Amino acid sequence: MDNCIFCKIIAGEIPCYKVYEDEFVLAFFDIYPAAEYHTLVIPKAHFVNMFDVPEEESAHIMRAIKKIVKLYEDKLGLKNLQVLCSSGTEAQQEIMHLHYHIVPRALGDGQNVKWATHPEWEDRFSELLEKLR
Amino acid sequence: MDNCIFCKIIAGEIPCYKVYEDEFVLAFFDIYPAAEYHTLVIPKAHFVNMFDVPEEESAHIMRAIKKIVKLYEDKLGLKNLQVLCSSGTEAQQEIMHLHYHIVPRALGDGQNVKWATHPEWEDRFSELLEKLR
Repeated sequence: MDNCIFCKIIAGEIPCYKVYEDEFVLAFFDIYPAAEYHTLVIPKAHFVNMFDVPEEESAHIMRAIKKIVKLYEDKLGLKNLQVLCSSGTEAQQEIMHLHYHIVPRALGDGQNVKWATHPEWEDRFSELLEKLR
Repeated sequence: MDNCIFCKIIAGEIPCYKVYEDEFVLAFFDIYPAAEYHTLVIPKAHFVNMFDVPEEESAHIMRAIKKIVKLYEDKLGLKNLQVLCSSGTEAQQEIMHLHYHIVPRALGDGQNVKWATHPEWEDRFSELLEKLR
């Protein structure tokens, strides 16, 4: 897609530090890394996010994520990481081409995800489930 | 696996608010929700995390995630969410049975993931790539 920076990376018009590539997926270092080996995994076809990617393309992405996790485990001895995908501008998505982050983590790195949680909301779960029927 | 709370949920020994189920995957509301409809997606087979799940099981999980995202979009009009998987105790994994979080997000919800980023590390990317060869 025109003016999509990730499509330009896929087309080779913008360089990247490539970690993995197959028919469907490209993975490269995030140039705003939260950790060494912080990697972005993207589909070669342009999908905006998890709302518009088809199921099988989505499965291809996960196979690639697993391959990269195994590579980092085998080559680097990595044992701790987070996988994150933000879909939607109100969910912190900035580049509107679907991407998964793989972020190696370590104790004391200061990068914890700090979601405030609300166990008291369980009272309403049955009502919420009704809305999905 | 004995003493795994998620295996007990799968076995029906502990109740859950079920959102989705198929041959390989179960999804239910997180009882410590960061948002309404915060959902956990888990494989029925016991895998600890992304390091030990096989590639195809991993792909099944992603297909289920996509189905749930579509359900939430269709039924709730949801357009913003994050998908997160923590693998390893140093990466905030608390329940040692692989699980993906689906967390609906909205502007001003105070739940932003705040990873400090280091663009200056790009100097070292070529050296890091070497270690993967």
